[in-house]
Amino acid sequence: MNSTGRADTVFFLSDYGIEDEFVGVVHAVLAAASPGGTIIDLTHQVPAFDVAAGSRALVRASPYLGPGVVLAVVDPGVGSLRRGVCLPVSPPGAGPTYFVGPDNGLLVAAAELVGEAPIARAFALHRRREAGEFGSTFDGRDLFAPAAAALSAGRAPEELGDPIDPASLVRLAGALVEFGTGSDGRPYLRAEVLWVDRFGNIQLAATAVDAQAAELPRSEAITLVGSGVRLRRVGTFDDLAPGELGLIVDANGQVAVVAGQAPAAASLGASAGDIMVLTW
Amino acid sequence: MNSTGRADTVFFLSDYGIEDEFVGVVHAVLAAASPGGTIIDLTHQVPAFDVAAGSRALVRASPYLGPGVVLAVVDPGVGSLRRGVCLPVSPPGAGPTYFVGPDNGLLVAAAELVGEAPIARAFALHRRREAGEFGSTFDGRDLFAPAAAALSAGRAPEELGDPIDPASLVRLAGALVEFGTGSDGRPYLRAEVLWVDRFGNIQLAATAVDAQAAELPRSEAITLVGSGVRLRRVGTFDDLAPGELGLIVDANGQVAVVAGQAPAAASLGASAGDIMVLTW
Amino acid sequence: MNSTGRADTVFFLSDYGIEDEFVGVVHAVLAAASPGGTIIDLTHQVPAFDVAAGSRALVRASPYLGPGVVLAVVDPGVGSLRRGVCLPVSPPGAGPTYFVGPDNGLLVAAAELVGEAPIARAFALHRRREAGEFGSTFDGRDLFAPAAAALSAGRAPEELGDPIDPASLVRLAGALVEFGTGSDGRPYLRAEVLWVDRFGNIQLAATAVDAQAAELPRSEAITLVGSGVRLRRVGTFDDLAPGELGLIVDANGQVAVVAGQAPAAASLGASAGDIMVLTW
Repeated sequence: MNSTGRADTVFFLSDYGIEDEFVGVVHAVLAAASPGGTIIDLTHQVPAFDVAAGSRALVRASPYLGPGVVLAVVDPGVGSLRRGVCLPVSPPGAGPTYFVGPDNGLLVAAAELVGEAPIARAFALHRRREAGEFGSTFDGRDLFAPAAAALSAGRAPEELGDPIDPASLVRLAGALVEFGTGSDGRPYLRAEVLWVDRFGNIQLAATAVDAQAAELPRSEAITLVGSGVRLRRVGTFDDLAPGELGLIVDANGQVAVVAGQAPAAASLGASAGDIMVLTW
Repeated sequence: MNSTGRADTVFFLSDYGIEDEFVGVVHAVLAAASPGGTIIDLTHQVPAFDVAAGSRALVRASPYLGPGVVLAVVDPGVGSLRRGVCLPVSPPGAGPTYFVGPDNGLLVAAAELVGEAPIARAFALHRRREAGEFGSTFDGRDLFAPAAAALSAGRAPEELGDPIDPASLVRLAGALVEFGTGSDGRPYLRAEVLWVDRFGNIQLAATAVDAQAAELPRSEAITLVGSGVRLRRVGTFDDLAPGELGLIVDANGQVAVVAGQAPAAASLGASAGDIMVLTW
Repeated sequence: MNSTGRADTVFFLSDYGIEDEFVGVVHAVLAAASPGGTIIDLTHQVPAFDVAAGSRALVRASPYLGPGVVLAVVDPGVGSLRRGVCLPVSPPGAGPTYFVGPDNGLLVAAAELVGEAPIARAFALHRRREAGEFGSTFDGRDLFAPAAAALSAGRAPEELGDPIDPASLVRLAGALVEFGTGSDGRPYLRAEVLWVDRFGNIQLAATAVDAQAAELPRSEAITLVGSGVRLRRVGTFDDLAPGELGLIVDANGQVAVVAGQAPAAASLGASAGDIMVLTW
């Protein structure tokens, strides 16, 4: 929050894409309602309707956000009875103060990472009457942006909605991570692919902490079960020859399957939601 | 217009794409000429040279813009003798005050939606000599952005160009909408596809008002002539089963062919400019 | 530099793409470290790892940038021992004051275009300890953005790194341009394709000055060797019939192969790095 007490930066993530004017119109609504504020686009290329992908992008970004309002819209249920929510958080540092978006699991993980877990307070946003003039198919413009702008201009969540039981918030299932010793006596680490990034790096649900607990070796060759591909565990991309496959701890602290200056996901045909099993 | 009398937000739309640095260079020119202003990108992914698509995106966005200058560049005639124009508008509310871009029909419909129709005043922009140093192929940078920045910094259109007869402005043909009773005695609504959005929703040229005048039924099954596909008219996306095709009034007040959490345009092979005929 | 002595605009170019939240996170880091500054995205769609393409986009954009810091990240060597650098420049006008990014040739040509050539001063950025908490695979977030924000907030490069010998900076090879008389007695101009833009225009490494020195004719037909295609040299796009191929001097002062309202690169199958030979 800045010196005037306003959390006047809005961090905006959606699946609106950039082909259309959706993102621009939301910016215009925010700017008109809260002049002088800053709007930072996190990304708008979340795959259409992919709430889990949006949630994970928020989780990755949240530790780096300053004070402000996170406005996130990935909303297959737009126009339905699903609630719009505001989640106030009290970050120990200077992170975002509010999360605003649909109650479909998009916001919860990031809000609990920034603030406390489980979430202590939540509000169901009031829907303004005039917003329903046309089909209510653009809640980013008509419901969420006005709420985000009001919060960024200093209004309290109590003015924008009714308190609800945080336990009633929709939550996404966690991603699979498990490790141990298989029936063949060999150690394994099994993890869901969380994300394939623009460079083809394959981020797994296993963290650096999981890797340590699983005793994933640092020097030995690791085998990707199924394909039989060997992965060398390295400290950084540069330790890999061009095209060579390896394992690193990535910039989010997750185990990732990568290749030297090449897209590992293309070599391995991997995509988000796949399960990968490592053994050694 | 803000308290200092400056319309210091520039709303920017183009077909420049984002692969290249075109958009960034225009931002830099705007920021250098009008420091402290705000630039809001509406979209830059208008299909290359598609003036009609750009015009429609402006029409959809314009009701939501605050005070400022709309800078729009979709310009197959760049470098030709076509004029660059500034259209001052007097919005009854707090909408944009100027539209700046090529005189090829891109601006007129949005300017008349925000201000009065027909347009009362128009100016042909002066071309600065130094801008022609290299081939005049980047008027967004060399002609339109400097004009938009000057207007946003408070200069009058009279300083930037010569008044022209608004009746001489290039206009686009309107999109087809018609309804009535066919030779088979059945009612029909025939309309051009204005836009297929990122989610595959098919926006028709028919408005909610047209639908009412055509007595498009709310409960009966509606047939898409040609394909024979049945469309259920619903209030919102959520009334459709996943993949089910339907008709809604969308967030711009237009009739749209949509599907539950799926791209209707992919199912129906529809794209902008197609003609769709509904009967019931 | 503005009236407070701060070069508080950051111009940001990368190959991060927009599918992920990379660009948004860098914006957040910049905004948190230098509140109230302006961030202008030049482009983030530089082809992944293509340092030469990024360098050329910077060269094209640099003459139009105002005071500030150019933050550029196209970095196949991220996490390696390659240095991060800050290049202070002293533009005769009001251009950017610092270039920040990897020492892989990305920055040098633009910095020498804006300031003096050869570069007079360079600094190797200190790496902050805490940034290495996770794998150092996101230097845009952890190394370069903090440095750019510090510079934009008024800190001196001496505070951020150690001076290095500018002669030790990595440089890219220049692009091929040559002209003369061939063994068949006919004049020729041979040039590398620098860039194919979104509209399919093919920018060559030859400048308007080269064209004049090579006596590239203005009226005669010019032949593209190999394909035998004829190119008409024209002043502007509008002199070409739709689809007709021609040669212009483009908005960056380079010779370009273009087509009337059509993508020349698609007709000719050209892409960056190809060599084109013209004769007449």
